[in-house]
Amino acid sequence: MNEPLFGRLAIVGPGLIGGSIALAARRTNVVGEIAITTRRQATLDAARARGLGDTYTTDPAEAARGADCVILCVPVGACGAVTETIAPVLKPGAIVSDVGSVKASVIAQVKPSLPGGVHFVPAHPVAGTEESGPDAGFAELFEGRWCILTPEDGTDPEAVALMNEFWQCLGSNVEIMDAAHHDLVLAITSHVPHLIAYNIVGTADDLEAVTRSEVLKFSAGGFRDFTRIAASDPTMWRDVFLNNREAVLEMLGRFSEDLTALQRAIRWGDGDALYTLFERTRAIRRGVIEAGQETAAADFGRRPRDEADE
Amino acid sequence: MNEPLFGRLAIVGPGLIGGSIALAARRTNVVGEIAITTRRQATLDAARARGLGDTYTTDPAEAARGADCVILCVPVGACGAVTETIAPVLKPGAIVSDVGSVKASVIAQVKPSLPGGVHFVPAHPVAGTEESGPDAGFAELFEGRWCILTPEDGTDPEAVALMNEFWQCLGSNVEIMDAAHHDLVLAITSHVPHLIAYNIVGTADDLEAVTRSEVLKFSAGGFRDFTRIAASDPTMWRDVFLNNREAVLEMLGRFSEDLTALQRAIRWGDGDALYTLFERTRAIRRGVIEAGQETAAADFGRRPRDEADE
Repeated sequence: MNEPLFGRLAIVGPGLIGGSIALAARRTNVVGEIAITTRRQATLDAARARGLGDTYTTDPAEAARGADCVILCVPVGACGAVTETIAPVLKPGAIVSDVGSVKASVIAQVKPSLPGGVHFVPAHPVAGTEESGPDAGFAELFEGRWCILTPEDGTDPEAVALMNEFWQCLGSNVEIMDAAHHDLVLAITSHVPHLIAYNIVGTADDLEAVTRSEVLKFSAGGFRDFTRIAASDPTMWRDVFLNNREAVLEMLGRFSEDLTALQRAIRWGDGDALYTLFERTRAIRRGVIEAGQETAAADFGRRPRDEADE
Repeated sequence: MNEPLFGRLAIVGPGLIGGSIALAARRTNVVGEIAITTRRQATLDAARARGLGDTYTTDPAEAARGADCVILCVPVGACGAVTETIAPVLKPGAIVSDVGSVKASVIAQVKPSLPGGVHFVPAHPVAGTEESGPDAGFAELFEGRWCILTPEDGTDPEAVALMNEFWQCLGSNVEIMDAAHHDLVLAITSHVPHLIAYNIVGTADDLEAVTRSEVLKFSAGGFRDFTRIAASDPTMWRDVFLNNREAVLEMLGRFSEDLTALQRAIRWGDGDALYTLFERTRAIRRGVIEAGQETAAADFGRRPRDEADE
């Protein structure tokens, strides 16, 4: 890469995603200067200690001033307030983007305060881990993962093309879709899975007849897989559910309906109904692995001998 | 280990668990001879090809004849039938054990047909992967995991002590508890987690508005973690639900009740309720890791650079 796509990139919120963007952008020389901003001084110090950017400030407007691209990497509920703060200093032709797991709500929050001549290209890199904060990011996070862009009709095609190229440079595959469809797809592939993981961990912790010590000791029977997701950032996920309410409630309704049917099959001893579902779901696992979105190693490759090899 | 605990060990069902027991027992010299039996010739041939035992037969009685210990490694619904077949040839003083994820039902199936003088020590190694069959086993599967013994009152203490030592030799920690309590603990730590994983994978596959291709591509947002568990052996899991009905329905009832409360919090925009739960569940994740039942590596350590290192 000889010519950077953006002379100056501003990252608002150097957490897992924002920090990983900074590291990946630096490694691939896809940007010139990287300005890092976050409200909390301690977070900013941690970002500086990891060398995530070139300049650091607790003032988002200072970071956004003169930027060719500003990426909001904050909880989706905070996107509107940040945009209001940076709007007055955005230069004509600048691109504003984000990384939120919900798109329609972010568009509704961001669009009203953006000045004319500034392009908005909403984005969602479908990647992450259960960790959060400036120390959690790594440059390879987006490799082989999908990034979804949801520009509204009439968005400057050149701005969309630039963001498309940016994410491809970071290692992602890019797909463009309508914001409402994105929110529906993610409700089932991400939001409801998180909700039921949080829920079962809470249910297990509330039992009187089974101690927490027992839950932890015998978690290798399946429970532990759910705890990973249930360790994700609480603020980020609270905002996801508050801002994608309709789609989450729709998918949750279907999940509960299907679960009730399974419950009935168990109550009535309908082994065939259970077997039919359990057989069908195996094929989906193979599909996820074939789609390059999962390791094929048994048990996520976490058998003791692999741990010993580390 | 100089003196084997059992001169002859018979394994009925050389799948993931049975095969791993054979490999671990051989590696630690905890047994003399290992007899392998399974009904299907193809499975037996695969077990022989992997060298899981010393003798191979499709006749369970032939394998059990003269055995000091017989371990039933078949779906829990099949334990009664197998016991009837081997009961006539069991030698006095022999120990019969199993590896089922449900204990009260297995006891009810096995006990009636066992001859006097044969000891029954039900066992459940809480370990496994999503794979199954003779090729799936490995000697380290039980290392650091828990094995639960659920002998009834009055069981010969020496037989219990022998099985305790056997599982410790295979690398497990051993806990002894009441069968009914086991079934309740496992309902929440294993059975209901499997059920909701199977369920959400089914729900996602049934949507009209979201294609299977979209579900697979964007599964890195959380869904893929559930597909691992939903790829587990269908027959084994059908039998678990049919044989632990009461406990599963009880835990499922609590899960659904809690999920309904979360659903209501989303509908009414109660962010505090969501945040409080999401914060609390993080602590459980830390507990699982501290209990040695989970890798601390982010994202199960499956970030691209680790995959590249393999």
